[in-house]
Formats: sequence, C-alpha cells, structure tokens
Amino acid sequence: VPSRPIGIFDSGIGGLTVFREIARILPHEDLVYLGDTARVPYGTKSAATVRRYALQNLRLLMREEVKMAVIACNTASAFALSILRETFPIPVVGVIEPGCIGALRATRSRRIGIIGTEGTITSRAYERSLRDQSPDVFIATASCPLFVPLAEEGWWEGNIAEEIAHRYLRDLVAQEIDTLILGCTHYPLLKKTIAKIVGPEINLIDSAEETAGAVVTKLDRSALKHDPQKHPRRTFFVTDSPERFRKLGRMILQEELPDVHHVEI
Amino acid sequence: VPSRPIGIFDSGIGGLTVFREIARILPHEDLVYLGDTARVPYGTKSAATVRRYALQNLRLLMREEVKMAVIACNTASAFALSILRETFPIPVVGVIEPGCIGALRATRSRRIGIIGTEGTITSRAYERSLRDQSPDVFIATASCPLFVPLAEEGWWEGNIAEEIAHRYLRDLVAQEIDTLILGCTHYPLLKKTIAKIVGPEINLIDSAEETAGAVVTKLDRSALKHDPQKHPRRTFFVTDSPERFRKLGRMILQEELPDVHHVEI
Repeated sequence: VPSRPIGIFDSGIGGLTVFREIARILPHEDLVYLGDTARVPYGTKSAATVRRYALQNLRLLMREEVKMAVIACNTASAFALSILRETFPIPVVGVIEPGCIGALRATRSRRIGIIGTEGTITSRAYERSLRDQSPDVFIATASCPLFVPLAEEGWWEGNIAEEIAHRYLRDLVAQEIDTLILGCTHYPLLKKTIAKIVGPEINLIDSAEETAGAVVTKLDRSALKHDPQKHPRRTFFVTDSPERFRKLGRMILQEELPDVHHVEI
Repeated sequence: VPSRPIGIFDSGIGGLTVFREIARILPHEDLVYLGDTARVPYGTKSAATVRRYALQNLRLLMREEVKMAVIACNTASAFALSILRETFPIPVVGVIEPGCIGALRATRSRRIGIIGTEGTITSRAYERSLRDQSPDVFIATASCPLFVPLAEEGWWEGNIAEEIAHRYLRDLVAQEIDTLILGCTHYPLLKKTIAKIVGPEINLIDSAEETAGAVVTKLDRSALKHDPQKHPRRTFFVTDSPERFRKLGRMILQEELPDVHHVEI
C-alpha cells in the first residue's frame, strides 16, 4: 500500500543521517524512525544478539504498518539483513550493499578504503560485499572508535576533529586508495573534516546517500512510491529517554523533532 | 564472612581503575569484577534503566557470595546506590561519596570543580553529596563525553588528549576552583594530561583512590577484613566478549588478566 510509511531503524541516533537523506529525496513520504537507544551500541554485540534485536525492532515498526524497512545501522545490516528479508513480507534495504555499489562505481584504481566502528571492521561485512561483486579489488580498512563520540559531541569540524581524523586516516591514505567508504552512519557528519584530511583525489562514499538512492529504486520497482499533496508525517520512537535523542536529532536534522516517543521493547 | 571476596562492578572497563586501587591497598583480598560490557555505556541511559542494570549486576555478584559490593561506576552510584543498599544484605560502597569527602578535605578556597560523563553531571549527584556535607561550597561542573572513548583508545597523553582536555576544562579553570573531582572511573587514566592542563595549583581528587580508602574503612568497621597468607583470587566477568576487555584491562592493570569469563545477564 503506497500510502503507508517507510520504517527506518538504527541502534541509536546515527541512522538519522540516513533518515535525513531519505527525507531529502522523498519529501512526500511518511517516515517512522526507531532508535534502539537503550541497547546502543550494536557494534560490540554478538551476531545472535544483534539479529534478535533487529527482529524485535522491525516487529515494532510493523505495528506502524510500514511498507518498506531500512536498516540504517551497519552492524544490523551485516548480521540481520537476510533474516529480516526472510521473516517479513516487505522489502528491506540495508546500508552495506548500496555503499559497496557506490564505491565500485566511483573507483578507477580499484583501490578502496573502508572506515567504520571496531565491530563493523572486524565483521568484514563491507569486504565480503565488495569481493562478492568484484573479487580482485584492493581493500584497506581502519576502525575509528573516536569518530562516533566526536560526531555526537557536535565537534564536526576544527582542530580536534582534524587531528583525530589525521591519526586514523594517514595509514589508509598512504595505501593509495582512490575511494573511501564511510562505513558508519555517524561519519557523514564528519564528512567535511574527512574530505579535508584525505584530500580531493579520494572519492568519499556516503552510505546514507547511497542507501537513500537504493530506497528510491526499490520503491519504484515495487510500485510503492507515494506522492500526495499533504504534509508528510515524521515520527520517532526511542527505547531510552527521548531527551538526548531530541537534542542530537536537532543538531543532525537542523530542525526540531516534536514527535519523539519512548517505547519499551 | 571475612574470607569471601569483594565484588566490584562497572558498566565496562573504567571500574578497573577502582579495582586497581583496591588491589593495591588490599593485596590479600579476593576480588571479583563484573564489567557489563554488553550494555556499556550507562552514562547516556535513563535512571530507571541504570537501576535495573545495577540490580541485575549485583544479583550476579551475589552468586559469587561476595561480602561487600563496590559500585565502581559513577552513573550507577548516582542512580542505584540506595536501591542496592535496600535490596541486598551486604555493605555497598559507591564512588561518589568518597570523592566528595576527599574534595572537601582538600579544598582551601571552598571552590570545587566536578567533571564526569553527561549522565553523571546531569544527575547532579556529586553536587548533592557535596552540599549535604557542606551547603555553602561553590561548585562548577563540566561534562567531558570524549574522555571515556579517549581513555579506551589508549591516547592518555599527547596532543589530542591535551587539546580535548583544554577545551573541556578551560571554563572550569576560569572559575578559580582549587580542587577538581575526577567524577568518572576512566578519568584517572587521563590524570597526567588533566594535571598538565589545569596546572599544579588545583588538587585532583581521584575517586578510585578515595573509594579504595572507603572500602578499607568499611571492611574494618564491619569486621570483614581478610588477611590470609594465600595468593588472592582475582576473577573477572564480562557480559560481552572477553577479548576487548582483556586487551584494555592489560593496558590499565599493567598485567595479564588470565581469568576473564563471559556471562549472560
């Protein structure tokens, strides 16, 4: 049913960068976002635990009668995409595949870098997805544990952000990559700083943008696109207190989030 | 029963600074540490959630028959100390009161600064405890969200640590405090950097040291002190994978942690 909302979930607030891109290119769609802030982060949890959480999250969104689901979380995309697709009768989009397709489209030297949380990098999910599509690509990776707290602190640019980015990225740049996947939904917030550090020769692949593109394609193919003249509904659920989510959400979306509800899972 | 172990719990690994101090001044006591690494951090979670986690943690330590419990976590001390004392039949020591007593002993100007996570600072737990003992003291506070990931990254000294510390502490120093409470168990790891930034005129109150002192006092008063000739047992439980805990634990305790077990809560 095209008039139903798109459901988006993440372990916390990082997925709002994906929400933001979807809202930008699909301004008429109703969107429901679930941030599992009580159980954040997923990156350090086991595959079985993350799978269980993802199932619970999408079950909750199904109560909102969503027509499509977006896993706006790298860890959950890595571990739970197949089981969600098997379990629920709606299309499900993750963030990893779109990012990899974007990177393979952008690279000329076929030397690709990936940055992400410790969990994402250790899981090798991006590497696997890249090699599935292109077995001979060169891949270099780095985990950047301080980037998420830095992004949540709002220190997206300036001295401190640049020094931290330099420390994390210098070895990666030395490997002569020409494309860098921002493999964490928080990292688009640091994009200007990352771009400044790696220089203009390296293409930055923003998974949030790529994922929003994949959502549009999927809506078109499933004939689920909705384009009414009414003002779209934007609803947010969080499993922990709405306060902090509202504050960070305002910073990321550059607007007030009036409709944030606490929900128990 | 004096021969039983002392239980110590924290949301993750920060509490190892408290463990380290207790092990140093009570070298003959058996110690059991629980790091709730699957649900870290507590600092951004609501009071109700933190209380529930603290109850579950101490319940788990009770299975190890601990004679006393130490909440080596500021957020949990702020939100859960009273409920743990009401619920369990053993003495429970938090980290907040000892830090406040130490600060009031050290200050001459009666101008005290407090730094901690967002959760600790917002809870005003240190402020309340200071004012309970000394209503007219001047208090200035700052939350330092990047200090924990910085400490866990092992970047305890150097440029990045100093710039971040400067940014967080400059306003506090400008308020002419003469004593600064390190109100987070991770912060003793950054003590050298913090000391360098605030200068030698400001007394740093290390809650880990103060808490270890409070444990000794409490053991004496409850006639629970144990002083055998055998080698003490040091056991660690974590709710997530032991790998990362072992690595960070080695960095903090400066020795191998052979006895780390995974446990489900």
